[in-house]
Amino acid sequence: MSELRIIAKQTGNFLEDFRPGQVFRHKGGKTLTEGLFATFTEFAMTSNPLAKNARYARAYGFRGLTAPPGLVMLVAFSQTVEDVSENARANLEYIDMRFGAPVYIGDTIEVETKVLNVRPSSSRPNLGIVHVQSVARKNLGADDEAVVMTWQRKVQVYKRDDDAELHAGEVAPDDVPCPLWLPEYDPARDYKSLAHLTSPDSYFEDFEVGTRIEHSRGRTMTSEHIHLTAVLDNTSQVHCNQFMIDLDPKQYVGGQLIIFGGIPFVLCLGLSSPDVGDNALGDVVYPTGRHTAPLFAGDTVFAATEILGKRDFEGRPDLGLLEARLLGHKFERSDGAESEDAPPGWKKTRIFELDRQIAVKRRSHYA
Amino acid sequence: MSELRIIAKQTGNFLEDFRPGQVFRHKGGKTLTEGLFATFTEFAMTSNPLAKNARYARAYGFRGLTAPPGLVMLVAFSQTVEDVSENARANLEYIDMRFGAPVYIGDTIEVETKVLNVRPSSSRPNLGIVHVQSVARKNLGADDEAVVMTWQRKVQVYKRDDDAELHAGEVAPDDVPCPLWLPEYDPARDYKSLAHLTSPDSYFEDFEVGTRIEHSRGRTMTSEHIHLTAVLDNTSQVHCNQFMIDLDPKQYVGGQLIIFGGIPFVLCLGLSSPDVGDNALGDVVYPTGRHTAPLFAGDTVFAATEILGKRDFEGRPDLGLLEARLLGHKFERSDGAESEDAPPGWKKTRIFELDRQIAVKRRSHYA
Amino acid sequence: MSELRIIAKQTGNFLEDFRPGQVFRHKGGKTLTEGLFATFTEFAMTSNPLAKNARYARAYGFRGLTAPPGLVMLVAFSQTVEDVSENARANLEYIDMRFGAPVYIGDTIEVETKVLNVRPSSSRPNLGIVHVQSVARKNLGADDEAVVMTWQRKVQVYKRDDDAELHAGEVAPDDVPCPLWLPEYDPARDYKSLAHLTSPDSYFEDFEVGTRIEHSRGRTMTSEHIHLTAVLDNTSQVHCNQFMIDLDPKQYVGGQLIIFGGIPFVLCLGLSSPDVGDNALGDVVYPTGRHTAPLFAGDTVFAATEILGKRDFEGRPDLGLLEARLLGHKFERSDGAESEDAPPGWKKTRIFELDRQIAVKRRSHYA
Repeated sequence: MSELRIIAKQTGNFLEDFRPGQVFRHKGGKTLTEGLFATFTEFAMTSNPLAKNARYARAYGFRGLTAPPGLVMLVAFSQTVEDVSENARANLEYIDMRFGAPVYIGDTIEVETKVLNVRPSSSRPNLGIVHVQSVARKNLGADDEAVVMTWQRKVQVYKRDDDAELHAGEVAPDDVPCPLWLPEYDPARDYKSLAHLTSPDSYFEDFEVGTRIEHSRGRTMTSEHIHLTAVLDNTSQVHCNQFMIDLDPKQYVGGQLIIFGGIPFVLCLGLSSPDVGDNALGDVVYPTGRHTAPLFAGDTVFAATEILGKRDFEGRPDLGLLEARLLGHKFERSDGAESEDAPPGWKKTRIFELDRQIAVKRRSHYA
Repeated sequence: MSELRIIAKQTGNFLEDFRPGQVFRHKGGKTLTEGLFATFTEFAMTSNPLAKNARYARAYGFRGLTAPPGLVMLVAFSQTVEDVSENARANLEYIDMRFGAPVYIGDTIEVETKVLNVRPSSSRPNLGIVHVQSVARKNLGADDEAVVMTWQRKVQVYKRDDDAELHAGEVAPDDVPCPLWLPEYDPARDYKSLAHLTSPDSYFEDFEVGTRIEHSRGRTMTSEHIHLTAVLDNTSQVHCNQFMIDLDPKQYVGGQLIIFGGIPFVLCLGLSSPDVGDNALGDVVYPTGRHTAPLFAGDTVFAATEILGKRDFEGRPDLGLLEARLLGHKFERSDGAESEDAPPGWKKTRIFELDRQIAVKRRSHYA
Repeated sequence: MSELRIIAKQTGNFLEDFRPGQVFRHKGGKTLTEGLFATFTEFAMTSNPLAKNARYARAYGFRGLTAPPGLVMLVAFSQTVEDVSENARANLEYIDMRFGAPVYIGDTIEVETKVLNVRPSSSRPNLGIVHVQSVARKNLGADDEAVVMTWQRKVQVYKRDDDAELHAGEVAPDDVPCPLWLPEYDPARDYKSLAHLTSPDSYFEDFEVGTRIEHSRGRTMTSEHIHLTAVLDNTSQVHCNQFMIDLDPKQYVGGQLIIFGGIPFVLCLGLSSPDVGDNALGDVVYPTGRHTAPLFAGDTVFAATEILGKRDFEGRPDLGLLEARLLGHKFERSDGAESEDAPPGWKKTRIFELDRQIAVKRRSHYA
């Protein structure tokens, strides 16, 4: 069959394909199985029993095991990759990431994205920035249809053709209601009998503004990231196509496969979980977040949390709103340069930062 | 306990153990859990929403998430490994692989195999070829008991004793009905409202005989293959016993652990899925297929599909029967030799080919 | 925010924190999902159909797929790590590990541990030994609440401060009833029709006291162990924090990440399964067990079983009680020294031993 006509498929959009106001209804959709749940709740050492202990989750008024915010984020975000960032160089910023209805095993998540802004890079003619707003809903058409997450992000995207005209411009974001669903506080429930299942020192009363908590554990990532990323339907080739990298290593960050940003995002949440997230009933919003350095197989990830503020949670005297900044870092060989916050021979590299507002239980009501 | 009598267990059959007409009712059986489903549907980037989005699958008339053909194949095939190919050197050919009833989470698959032909190798006295026919059924004894898959294969098997007599000979294959179950087309269903969940350009009308589609993505396999193969109950030692290889590397293909053929089989199906399988309702039959080169950890797999033919699907004006050839390849360093279809310094090595007949939706009825 | 107060979190207890009689009600708890089930039943090549084939399990009188003892052990044991052994150097001995109620998908396991004995090391001032007793229960507060496992273990734990006073001393273990639940033998059931699903030569009648069965398969472990250990909520840093090792390799066994002992424990059970565990209805007790050498990524694990005794199973003429010793080993380069039980150039290193009492079906009743 030497006379076959060859069709070289391209996937994903390039910079010149995006138009302000354009809406993508993403392909696929994803039903949350117990397989996904086990893999992604737990590779990151999440310790909140809402995601691990069905007895605890039901006693609090959830229907059963409840997806932690990191899992919801991984599933929802990955649905947008093919259309938005398959041909991206980097994800620049997460903005106003809000959580809504709880996500349970068996729920099906589908996602839409609206293009808000397209602009060229000032310094690199083959790149530009796309700003999008995404909405993830569950169980469309069913009685429990609900928004589970909304977020914006800015992403640096390659042009297919350096000389192509852009559809530069801007539209306003939609107002998408995404209120965090929380179970009612019911004094008749015996919450205290469950208090030993969470950390004794991560109630709202325990946090002090102006402190930084260095979380004790580190976790080394391996080439497992290729498998994890595939299972999420994240199709970006910089995470899984070693041959593409080998052909032109200088074109790619670090000259090797880069770990999908959702992995350190969720891993930092997990590492902080025993100290910060264990007694949370939900994450309300992540106002802003970004990756500040790439992560590669072999790196060990650590996390810290800065306590920025504490506020009452409106209408819920049993809860407080904790404002925190989650920081991720790794260590690299310093090649002689000394660093104050790293052991001799090493330097500390920040890889991730995320501002969080979390609904945290008060000891006065729960323990 | 120095006087213990030692029993060195052997597993699997050798060439001289097979007899034409012999039937193996394979041990174990396997219930399809959500864990298996998540792992094996998604490591390969399968994009058909029947396997990922329960809302979509139910709207089409399936009971829920439906195992893609690649997952059915991996589970059913692996059940036969201990008896048929634990002591094999290579799997030579897949023949007449047919799919029947849909497989859902919770279904239990059990497999039988009949030996059709045994013959010695003409050139190598320690090897021969066994030709078998296998049938996989689900939910034996239950109301929904059904054949889910039948296939034949030829496998090159080692002798235990080079001088042993063979039970050479041949019997005819059984006639095993295995009609592909497909949901009825119901004009009252609102299929069009789901059309955004699949590729817009992979309907039956979109394919043109005489074209080859180069699928855009590559996927690097890692040592994850050892774990994946174990989870499938595939016990063949050439996939997971590095010490055995280290003792006598020259005896083994490539002198290293070889990746179980089911992995590239399913990975090529997955890589082709956005372009070819996304709008399929089912795979009808794979008339023939084979592995043409081994795959090792570190290799990046690519796929292409040649469109061989298009036919009406009898009794189903909403569908067409697509005849295609799925090809898998990887790139290897060329050591100087130049190649037309590979970048400089590389050569393209075909690893897999599979003829497929697929029941594909027509845009006229579904979008 | 340069004036942040830094809180360096520590997790887990050090030797001086333990007091005889102290009780830990461990955090978290864990609901057994189908994801956990698939991963941990099958990475180890377990072949007992009670854990793989729901049709078989139900036909025998179980509610459905039944967690094999190795999975129950991994989940229950891991719950105790943060409190008991996060700061341990080594796990010295498993003692009187008993299995009770069957564990099904959806069951939630929670664990308590009592400190029995604390004593200093005679030779190393920064270490000592803690002896604990743990009890794992399922579905607390529900109708099917039950003890699923009890065990004792001795663990070598670091001191936080070499000069700290210990709470040395001893209390007696609790008497915790943990009878193995077994389905009734019912002559009306057609067990024989299922006999092809298990090994034909692993009934009670097949074992002979004074034999050692060398199991045929080996399984190479990879860096997958980091992921597996995280998914189990085992937080011990020696299994997953490569940076900690790199800072001071000499402080750690082998100067590299060590594989969590639960992994070879369960892997040896799995490798022995086709020959010894396939026709068991349950494991009754493991009187004693220990790790005798560390396991690292890249090692290939093999197993053997010595038959120590055979006894009637009280009240169950259909079963026998098999007393066996499970042995695990790997091979290391011998650097010149020859060894009788290893190929030239290699030496055989025992890594694990476990005494088992198993309830095994009699062929007379089941096949």
